[in-house]
Amino acid sequence: MFSQETKIGVLGGGQLGRMLVQSAINFNLDLKVLDPDPNAPCKSISQFEVGNLKDEATVHQFGKTCDVLTIEIEAVNIAALKRLEQEGVKVFPQPHIIEIIQDKRIQKQFYKQYNIPTADFILTETKADVIKNVHFLPAVHKLGKDGYDGRGVQIIRTESDLDKAFDAPGILEKLIPFEKELAVIVARNEKGEVNAFPVVEMAFHPVHNLVEYLFAPATLSEEISQKAKKIALEVIEKLELVGILAVEMFLTKDGEILVNEVAPRPHNSGHQTIEANHTSQYEQHLRAILNLPLGDTAEKIPSAMVNLLGEDGFSGPAVYEGMDEVLKVSGVHVHLYGKKITKPFRKMGHVTICDSNLEKLREKAIFVKNTLKVKS
Amino acid sequence: MFSQETKIGVLGGGQLGRMLVQSAINFNLDLKVLDPDPNAPCKSISQFEVGNLKDEATVHQFGKTCDVLTIEIEAVNIAALKRLEQEGVKVFPQPHIIEIIQDKRIQKQFYKQYNIPTADFILTETKADVIKNVHFLPAVHKLGKDGYDGRGVQIIRTESDLDKAFDAPGILEKLIPFEKELAVIVARNEKGEVNAFPVVEMAFHPVHNLVEYLFAPATLSEEISQKAKKIALEVIEKLELVGILAVEMFLTKDGEILVNEVAPRPHNSGHQTIEANHTSQYEQHLRAILNLPLGDTAEKIPSAMVNLLGEDGFSGPAVYEGMDEVLKVSGVHVHLYGKKITKPFRKMGHVTICDSNLEKLREKAIFVKNTLKVKS
Repeated sequence: MFSQETKIGVLGGGQLGRMLVQSAINFNLDLKVLDPDPNAPCKSISQFEVGNLKDEATVHQFGKTCDVLTIEIEAVNIAALKRLEQEGVKVFPQPHIIEIIQDKRIQKQFYKQYNIPTADFILTETKADVIKNVHFLPAVHKLGKDGYDGRGVQIIRTESDLDKAFDAPGILEKLIPFEKELAVIVARNEKGEVNAFPVVEMAFHPVHNLVEYLFAPATLSEEISQKAKKIALEVIEKLELVGILAVEMFLTKDGEILVNEVAPRPHNSGHQTIEANHTSQYEQHLRAILNLPLGDTAEKIPSAMVNLLGEDGFSGPAVYEGMDEVLKVSGVHVHLYGKKITKPFRKMGHVTICDSNLEKLREKAIFVKNTLKVKS
Repeated sequence: MFSQETKIGVLGGGQLGRMLVQSAINFNLDLKVLDPDPNAPCKSISQFEVGNLKDEATVHQFGKTCDVLTIEIEAVNIAALKRLEQEGVKVFPQPHIIEIIQDKRIQKQFYKQYNIPTADFILTETKADVIKNVHFLPAVHKLGKDGYDGRGVQIIRTESDLDKAFDAPGILEKLIPFEKELAVIVARNEKGEVNAFPVVEMAFHPVHNLVEYLFAPATLSEEISQKAKKIALEVIEKLELVGILAVEMFLTKDGEILVNEVAPRPHNSGHQTIEANHTSQYEQHLRAILNLPLGDTAEKIPSAMVNLLGEDGFSGPAVYEGMDEVLKVSGVHVHLYGKKITKPFRKMGHVTICDSNLEKLREKAIFVKNTLKVKS
């Protein structure tokens, strides 16, 4: 049963935590947040503590006063979470699932084991291992652990790229000549109730591997769309995860859907749900971990999302150029992440654009992308 | 030009301030809030200071470190605000306008002076004055100052009600046999740009004079709707107010629109804009006081709003009954105000319901009203 007295802890105080806190205000829930950065985005809007998320004692200490503990980043100490779980704290997503997802090698084996469609892959231990598998190219080489926001991923098309390989445990994955990159956010509460948000499509920055534009809903046939949702729901049900799960997928040129990777938390591909859907991904995550009924995921209006990255060549206190111009555009929602300092390609915020006219939506998204700049 | 470094102060830390703070998070603006109650709703989500809003020194001290100072309640010290204004702080709404609105006697005279349609009235100084004007009944008797949330208002239908009259300066206003109560929120920035939200209609609790249901948009002819907006815009332009202004109006049985009263701040009649409109009243207020372009006020979807009042007969730590049931309903958005203690008829939160089917919208609103209860 809902109680505003439930003590909820969040590991990680970045923008995802920030938007989770912002959503929790509606339920009178004062979230407690742990982050190593004393200036993390959650700092001034939550009960904020500074500490290392990978340190067992710190995480255990932080979590033991919570009724429910959740994450906004996967790189956290699992041993502490398992201890807390044994001590009766509800840890959602469950620690053993975070452990699976933390390591892309284990994650990929999980898909294989449960017949979830995914690109073929080879486990590699060292750089030499990657070089040995030259026959497998073109491929994507990913570090098993600690990849983040495009880091820890290298595209190795030909022999001449082999030098980029990581000399650490990873996977070598067949490069998929995909038609589109899709994402579906699914949710599951403790009762086992599940549901899926509409499928969205993303356009990535060609070099920095960050989402540049997102469109919701994706332009897909009903069949493909249902297939994508079905696969995403299969993943969360096989994992028996409590919380939300963002499932990133490739739609191949021959209409196949392959799971790329998943994130057991609010995700960049769900920001637009704040304005465009009946329930936001943040509220859905809270509903799931508090065992409340899941909210309706339907769209109120089509939307696009543009990440606001620090402009290349600028480092220092952030200044937003073009703000007035974009605020003049109808249906524009600016979200800044509380970061005072900008760096090249740092995620400083995002903008959601809502418009029932898809043509105008696209034009507005491009206008926002080209107009709003983070400089210093 | 927009800067995330702009220091904004808010006088009042109640639910309106809380939702303003929640909205300001999107712009990286850390709001500083002053409220006499150490447990005010804004307490844990802002830079919060405890102090008397009617004390000149306290308000002056609080305001002098701000670039922009605003209010979420009208009962504030005007002398301090006028000093701050002279010292270069941007005080929006402007102090002389708050002063007009604070006193219903001056407010009414303002309407008269500018030919803004409003119910006929008589200024009264004492209870004896009211009794003397028995020929004016049936009437509504209002205290000039310090009325709030239904307090300070008495309906005096016949001679036998005369004993309820306040023995203090007030107004005696002709009781309007109205068809509907309407409200329009309008905004104006420093550049003088203005716009209006769609007209909403309200149903009040018959005894406690608090909004029970709100429907947006109101069911009105286009002609009446345009007339209501035009009058509301006239009020904000005549006042030359910077910020938002909620204009409450009566639609009389013969299609006339009369201004009842105004509030120069976010208002109970605009909560639903958070989910249902392109721009929320809170963001609109921020845009107006920061001299940013005003946002599009259009609706994304029709909505209803239900105030969540403390159940009669319960005082103490709040417990929410029926939360699971209402959260199961599609399009329901619960907003709790961060109040730990409930009292009979205390405003503890509100629920917005969005549905494009107007029939279902009404049913859902009634279901929410009858299901979600604040007890202790």
